[in-house]
Order: sequence, then C-alpha cells, then structure tokens
Amino acid sequence: MTASDLQTVAIELADRSYHIAIRGSLLDNPLSYAQLPKSAAALIVTNTTVGPLYAPQLEKALAAHYGKVFTVVLPDGEAFKTWESLNLIFDALLRHGCDRKTTLFALGGGVVGDMTGFAAASYMRGVPFVQVPTTLLAQVDSSVGGKTAINHPLGKNMIGAFYQPLKVVCDLDTLKSLPQRELSAGLAEVIKYGPIADMDFLAWLEGNLEAVLAREPVALAHIVKRSCEIKAWVVGQDERESGLRAILNFGHTFGHAIEAGLGFGAWLHGEAVGCGMVMAAQLSARLGLVDAFFVHRLSTLITKAGLPVRAPRLSETDNAGRYLELMRVDKKSEAGEIKFVLIDKPGSACVRSAPDAVVRQVIDACCA
Amino acid sequence: MTASDLQTVAIELADRSYHIAIRGSLLDNPLSYAQLPKSAAALIVTNTTVGPLYAPQLEKALAAHYGKVFTVVLPDGEAFKTWESLNLIFDALLRHGCDRKTTLFALGGGVVGDMTGFAAASYMRGVPFVQVPTTLLAQVDSSVGGKTAINHPLGKNMIGAFYQPLKVVCDLDTLKSLPQRELSAGLAEVIKYGPIADMDFLAWLEGNLEAVLAREPVALAHIVKRSCEIKAWVVGQDERESGLRAILNFGHTFGHAIEAGLGFGAWLHGEAVGCGMVMAAQLSARLGLVDAFFVHRLSTLITKAGLPVRAPRLSETDNAGRYLELMRVDKKSEAGEIKFVLIDKPGSACVRSAPDAVVRQVIDACCA
Repeated sequence: MTASDLQTVAIELADRSYHIAIRGSLLDNPLSYAQLPKSAAALIVTNTTVGPLYAPQLEKALAAHYGKVFTVVLPDGEAFKTWESLNLIFDALLRHGCDRKTTLFALGGGVVGDMTGFAAASYMRGVPFVQVPTTLLAQVDSSVGGKTAINHPLGKNMIGAFYQPLKVVCDLDTLKSLPQRELSAGLAEVIKYGPIADMDFLAWLEGNLEAVLAREPVALAHIVKRSCEIKAWVVGQDERESGLRAILNFGHTFGHAIEAGLGFGAWLHGEAVGCGMVMAAQLSARLGLVDAFFVHRLSTLITKAGLPVRAPRLSETDNAGRYLELMRVDKKSEAGEIKFVLIDKPGSACVRSAPDAVVRQVIDACCA
Repeated sequence: MTASDLQTVAIELADRSYHIAIRGSLLDNPLSYAQLPKSAAALIVTNTTVGPLYAPQLEKALAAHYGKVFTVVLPDGEAFKTWESLNLIFDALLRHGCDRKTTLFALGGGVVGDMTGFAAASYMRGVPFVQVPTTLLAQVDSSVGGKTAINHPLGKNMIGAFYQPLKVVCDLDTLKSLPQRELSAGLAEVIKYGPIADMDFLAWLEGNLEAVLAREPVALAHIVKRSCEIKAWVVGQDERESGLRAILNFGHTFGHAIEAGLGFGAWLHGEAVGCGMVMAAQLSARLGLVDAFFVHRLSTLITKAGLPVRAPRLSETDNAGRYLELMRVDKKSEAGEIKFVLIDKPGSACVRSAPDAVVRQVIDACCA
C-alpha cells in the first residue's frame, strides 16, 4: 500500500449499502462526487473551525454536479450539538426552498456529522446525505454506521435516527490540520477496535504509534481503513444495535458519564472514551474476564496516544454514586440496569451487567 | 357487519407490518394490548382535551401489561405541533429514566399521533409505539401509514420520519365525544378516498352521509374500515412516498397553503383539505381531465359534510401569488415546480405540474 492508492471499504446494508473512500486529495476532487444522484441543490453543513479551511474547496468541487450549492456554518463543539444548531440547518434548507432530493454534505468532525445526518433523516422525512469527515474520530467512527443524533440536556445522543449516508469521503489530507489533542481523541476509537475485535491490530498500533502520531500518510491510511473495516463488519451484522453492535460502545458507558458529569465539551469525546476503556478493562479484570497484564497493556497504549487514563471526580460527596446515576441513563440500560461492554478475552467483547459494589470499586480506583 | 364485530385491517410492510383494530369498547380493554411486547414502562402521550376523557381508562388497561405507566399531557392544537411540545415528550421519557424498550401510546388526534410517532422514531434512535386515535381524521388517515412530523415556522410537517406503529387501536366510541366540526374535518379525508381510488365508496357516502353525521355505529365502522383499507393498499405499495403514495395528498397542496397562509390552527386540517379538494378538482377540470359534473358532485358532498368549499383570501395585493408561493414549499415540489395531485378520471389520481396561469384562474375562481 502506498499513500497514493485509493482505499475503499464497502458497508453492506442491502438497499442502504455504501462505500467509504480513503486517500488524500479527495475532498476537492469533483470525481469524488461524480456518481452521486444529481439534484437541483446541495447544502454543505460545516462549523466555524472547519468551514474556513475546506468549505470553499468543497463548494467548488460540487459546483459541477449540483445547480446550486449552499453552505451553513454551525458553532463548533459538542456543547452545540443541540436542537438550536439543528434548526439552523432546517432554516437554511427551507429558506433556500430545498426539496426532498437536496443532498446534504457533512463537512467536519463527529458533531457536524451526527447533526447533519439527523437533519437529513428528518428534513421532509428524509433527504440524501454524504459524509466528508475531517477529523480522525469522524473518519474511523462517527461517519460509519448511520448513527445520527443530537444531545438532550438530560443525556447525550438521546434524540436521533439510524440513517445511512450515500457515501463517505475520508480525505486524509484534512488530518494534517488537526490539533494534536483531536488526533489523540480520534486514536481512542482506533485503539478500541483492538481489544473488542483484533489483537493483531492492537499489536500493530503498539509498534507503529509514533508513525501515526507523526501523521505518516501510510500509517494514517492503514488505521482509517482497518478501523472502518472492523466497524463495517460489525454494523453489517447488526445495523440497528439489537445485539453485537453494542460492542462498539466499549469504553463509552463510563465515557458518557464523564462527558455528562463534567458538562459536554469539557473533555473531548475521545478523551472520555480513552479513560472509559481503562475503566471498562479494569471492570473486566475484577470480574475475572481478563488479567492485569491486559489492562496494563491497554492502559499503556492509551497513555502513549496522549489520552487521560485517570478518571475525573464528578461529585465531592458520592463520586461513585454520581457515576452510577449518570450511567443508568445510558441507551444500553434496560429497566434501570446498566449494561457494560466488557472484554471477555483479548480481542472479544460482550455486553453484561455488573454488581454495583464492583463498579464502585473500579470507579474509586480509577479516580484515586 | 354489526357494530359489535371487531374489524381488522392489515398493513403489509414486511417486518414493519401491523394491524388496525376497529370497534367500540377497545381503548379500555386490556385485551387490545395483550399481544404487544412487554416492557418496564409505557408512556401515554395525550393532550389537554382528550387526556381528561380517556387517559385514566387507558392507564388502567395498560397497568396489567407494563410495570409503570406514565402520562404526558401536551397543549391541544395544530399550533402546538412544534419542537417545544415534542421536547415535553423527551423530557418525560428522560425524567422517568425510560429505556429503549419503552412503548409510547399516542392517545388523541392527528397532532398527538404525529408528534408521538416522531418522538418514538427519535428517542434513543427508535422505541416502539402504538396509535390510539380518538378523532375520525386520525382513525382514517394520520394513524395509518407511518408518517410522523412536526411543523416548522416555514412549513407544515417539514421535520419528521417514516416510522410504523406496532398497532393501531381505533375505538369508535371515542367518536361520540367528538365536536361536530371535528367530525366534519375527518370526513374530508374519508371523502378523499372516493375520487382517488373508489367511486363506489363515493356513491355510498352520498347515500349514507346522514347516518354518518348522526354517528350511527355501523356507518362509522364502515367508513373507518374502508378508508383504512384503501390507505393500506396504497401505502403497502409505496411506503416512503416515492410515487403512488402521493395520491393520498389529493387536496393537500392547496390545503397546506390555506393552513400556512391563515396561520396553522385557524382552519382545521380537514377543512383546508375539503376546500383544497374542490380546488384540485377544479384544476383537473380546467386541464380537461374531468368534467364539470364531477366537480359539482364532489363539491356538493363536501358541502353536505359541513366543510368549506370557498377558499380564503391569503393576500389583499396578490392573492394567487401568495398561494403559489406557499405551495412551492410543499414537500412534493421539485426544483421549485409545484406537483399537484389531480383526478385524471373519477376514481383515479395522478401527480403532475400545471401552468401557473391556470392555477391562478382556479384560485381566483375559488376565492371569488
């Protein structure tokens, strides 16, 4: 594999199947969009950070294909993943008289992708959309699999839809402009695929993390492609998360509690997931599923990726109780019982509950 | 058929298939819900008008089946079919810690059904829901077919989802408490099925309208069942409105313009559709598709049903222009061209555009 090869990953979902294209110099290339259905208008949704960097190039590349190309710029950050921001997209669509064939383009990270996807799912009960993810996190996770959502003050991603894009265009060049903290946050979701599905990939990451952090094109292409392949394999078997798909949430139950408890946006999503994976691995160990060496190995890799492994305190009076309270609102919970994604052996995950007392021990140990 | 027979209509949509049950004494009967999947909690969504009449009975009937039954009461009326009302449902779900197996029950008319359906489609990316429509309009139209939505200040039903209920329970006894104006509004959608699909049904209505207006149980059972059958036939062929299904919008293009132009809630939806059908029939006649006798026959039946057939003026300066402007926002529009549902011969409908000049003539004639 060289950096100039176009990599593609197929997501097989019957009449909702699509392809992920991975390479540099894709975003500004009209050929990236040439096979999409024609329509009178396209709307690019981006944010105040990414828009100035890439929106003009995308507008130009789309101009050949659509009669009119509009752009709406949202405020940047998880804190703005709200109904108010979503409504800015609806306002733009209606103000421009966009019909139900209008194609939406999500240009940005996971927040832009999730909101654009939900807007596309809901506008006139569904219009087509394309993901153009510009962060590592979005390229390896949120742009694949069709989960779209906004946050509610009482819970993250509580309002949304399963809705698949027509195509995902991962331009690796956009990762060059990514702040180091965002690159690290994206690596949390990359590392995740090791313990839940592919220990060879984990070993590869241990051996090549420096090349990844130095953003060597071949290393980036490999982690994006392998992550998308594993996610595609899981999502292809369970599109609507009735079973297997939940393993993709490894680290997310604790992670969501951290995000909600600190206020969305204080920690990046990937930072919370990185720390959450260490907590979930420790819980797996305390339940006798994996050994201490596995936890140490994962924790070391997460630390080297530039991510926190020590959990924040969420309450001065009953810290573990606050974690438990926040985790009960998780979408995987059933009848108030928290479902954790645990590692039952390295490279394999399961979903199960755990005694509150053991969960408290893990929280106390990780917050110490 | 007697009034005590349970009527059922099957909606065949692969793994989203469901049944409509039609009879009196269904709402308060636990057997109506006995075959639904069990879950820890159910949430009844109703409004300030219907809630006091029927919510206690429904709560009691559901108590045997669900661990907890909660009720949320929304303000009544099309003017409240907004994000703010929708959010009251999400608030209730999250406040009660409802999980993704929680079943939502829509108890009320079309507005409650549309909002509850969209809340069910979106909460945690989809929870099950059941329609318990208490108006004629909802029983014959909005509870069947899976269209859910809220309004946007710039357009009606602009934000929503296609999402099917687990079951529809049409309790004919609820129609006894319906104000006469609401009964008439519901009849607009009943009459609609004649010109687009079944002229025998139109003839039956002409001969039995008095029995319907007197709310004779056998007459009500017949119109609800026949309307649902025709709608089921259409929706079964085109769930997501890529073609045929659009004929169900006969009268709705002009009707939506009336509703939007007067402000949502000034005219009832069915009143706007009744008048809109006369306008669409006149447009069909001016385009040479049907004769004046057909227009007269339809207009007479609509008048006898207690519905307006004269259109309101929406602008003092350019009335027809205002109609055209509002109709261009319609979801059926493509690239700014208005698509009308027209009658190409009695009992058959088509979707096509029409010259602005002819549409203006129709508006001028109907507003005169």
